[in-house]
Amino acid sequence: MKVAIIGLGLIGGSWGLALRRWGKSEEGKSIKLEIVGFDVKATQRSEAEKQGVCDRTTATPMEAVQGADVIIIATPPAAVRETFEDIADHLVNGAIITDTASTKRQVLRWAKELLPTTVSFIGGHPMAGKTSSLEGATADLFKNCIYCLVPAPTAREEAIEAVARLVEIIGAKSHFIDPDEHDSYVAAISHLPFLMSAALTNLTSESEGWREISKLTAGGYQDATRLSGGSVPMHLDICRTNSDAIIGWLDRYQRNLSELRTMLENAGMIDERGRSRSLESTNSVPLQEYLERARLARERWEEEKARQPERDEMAEVVNMPSKRELQAEYTRMFTGGFFGKRRSNDNGSNEQPRKK
Amino acid sequence: MKVAIIGLGLIGGSWGLALRRWGKSEEGKSIKLEIVGFDVKATQRSEAEKQGVCDRTTATPMEAVQGADVIIIATPPAAVRETFEDIADHLVNGAIITDTASTKRQVLRWAKELLPTTVSFIGGHPMAGKTSSLEGATADLFKNCIYCLVPAPTAREEAIEAVARLVEIIGAKSHFIDPDEHDSYVAAISHLPFLMSAALTNLTSESEGWREISKLTAGGYQDATRLSGGSVPMHLDICRTNSDAIIGWLDRYQRNLSELRTMLENAGMIDERGRSRSLESTNSVPLQEYLERARLARERWEEEKARQPERDEMAEVVNMPSKRELQAEYTRMFTGGFFGKRRSNDNGSNEQPRKK
Repeated sequence: MKVAIIGLGLIGGSWGLALRRWGKSEEGKSIKLEIVGFDVKATQRSEAEKQGVCDRTTATPMEAVQGADVIIIATPPAAVRETFEDIADHLVNGAIITDTASTKRQVLRWAKELLPTTVSFIGGHPMAGKTSSLEGATADLFKNCIYCLVPAPTAREEAIEAVARLVEIIGAKSHFIDPDEHDSYVAAISHLPFLMSAALTNLTSESEGWREISKLTAGGYQDATRLSGGSVPMHLDICRTNSDAIIGWLDRYQRNLSELRTMLENAGMIDERGRSRSLESTNSVPLQEYLERARLARERWEEEKARQPERDEMAEVVNMPSKRELQAEYTRMFTGGFFGKRRSNDNGSNEQPRKK
Repeated sequence: MKVAIIGLGLIGGSWGLALRRWGKSEEGKSIKLEIVGFDVKATQRSEAEKQGVCDRTTATPMEAVQGADVIIIATPPAAVRETFEDIADHLVNGAIITDTASTKRQVLRWAKELLPTTVSFIGGHPMAGKTSSLEGATADLFKNCIYCLVPAPTAREEAIEAVARLVEIIGAKSHFIDPDEHDSYVAAISHLPFLMSAALTNLTSESEGWREISKLTAGGYQDATRLSGGSVPMHLDICRTNSDAIIGWLDRYQRNLSELRTMLENAGMIDERGRSRSLESTNSVPLQEYLERARLARERWEEEKARQPERDEMAEVVNMPSKRELQAEYTRMFTGGFFGKRRSNDNGSNEQPRKK
């Protein structure tokens, strides 16, 4: 089996290391695994060879995919499109293509538009939650992580099964999800937090008192701004290919902050001119309840996460959607009906789009 | 020397452990250090005795402060007021009182209102940045941390020097700051991030799709919501005693997010109905610049923090304000002139209040 990895950063590198480790197992040996890598940066290619991420690298993506059974595209979102264009005419019939981009709707559109119908595209997104470069790549990066899989409607069932098997091989858990839900969910838990972090960093560091303010910064500020230090090209692509979902969550977030502001105003012992207010004129109950809801929800989330591994062991069967289910889902998506329905729930509501 | 610690949580407990370690040194032995502790919870008192946080505990704060040279109040902000009321009539002349609350203006007002003029109050706030309970207390908690000191205008110079010396003894760096700046700065770097975190936790966990969304959460979400898991009574007090400063920063933060929303809209490849937009009609330059500014600022901040220890060693002299400087500062503060000036800079400006 020949695997091509396009994009040799943290994710591509970790895919390579995890697969090569498996290649040394009995099963791996029997299928004669060969891994070919490509990255636009020559330095990255030689570094990848040095780290043993792949058997060899090539100077172009076209050479890398020649005769490849499986192609893993681990570039930032926008480069996935370019890669599709580059490799489309060089794919063997029946090739299996997957990516690792953080947004999925746009990638699936590009696959439909640019890839031949003789190949199967199964979008992927590992929830590995780590920002780093090739140096941080490890065979264990995906261990126990949720790996979202979003097969194109034209993907063959065996191809979907093959990708699910590869995900299992690298130690992750396949999680089949439709592209619209995927993009909305990660907008809430990943893209919005990134923008919250960037906004805090810009607000504070561009304020006039920053030289003095920064002296007092400690662990809280460090955590709250950590995400803003991530890769700009990657996050720019994420924002561009998921703008509508992010804006939807950002609007709800802003409404939530506005409600919080009212609670602060009512609970405050100091008025807007900096003078003391009489305690009798304040009402701190709504603010207290708000903070208690958050503390409790955070605690519950942490407990759930701690329980995850044992729950996963109980549910060993991969919950793979049937071909018919997929077809129905995607027909809706590509004819636009799904988006139309989704947006109608979005106006003025403080809720996340209703699940179908 | 007799020290009373009121409130035996993480901060009070760590003060006790750090002072008792010093008590075993030559200098400590020569002054015959005795530490008496009090906490409203009896279980906390016996736990503190077990952990060796103090020599003995008392059943009331009045007993604890009897004959004490130094009193450290390490309760949540609102309980500082109650403690002042409890102990005011039981203090020896010349006693030195300090607190550890996260907001300072309100505490200084209470000190002026409730404490006798025969004692010296020096407000304190260690930037230790850790949320935990007595079990987490350690003699090294304050090591190399910035310790804000906000002396009352009536505090004797020797008392201020004594507190600065105690801060040095526990391994922290004294940082003299006026109460208004303190409260504004910590609102930006600590209280706003806490509320951002609480709002994200509530928004996501109360959304309809949460059961499915939560499956995809990973490291980014964990960091972004971490602060929301902190103590509600403490944060409620912080919000109530610093409401005006927090609201000021929250308003600027919301304006910043609204600008970001416009950039997202312009850069997005997907319109608000979920349809692809032509690339020519998008403009991603402002968004890219915004994200690059944040990434760069975060990087610079990290570099500065890494350099901090060596810089601190170069500047060993504690930068203590003179009595006259303090008096002038506080007269302004308590007559309201300072607040008046501050607010006038606040309207519509995206900047943090101008430094005097």
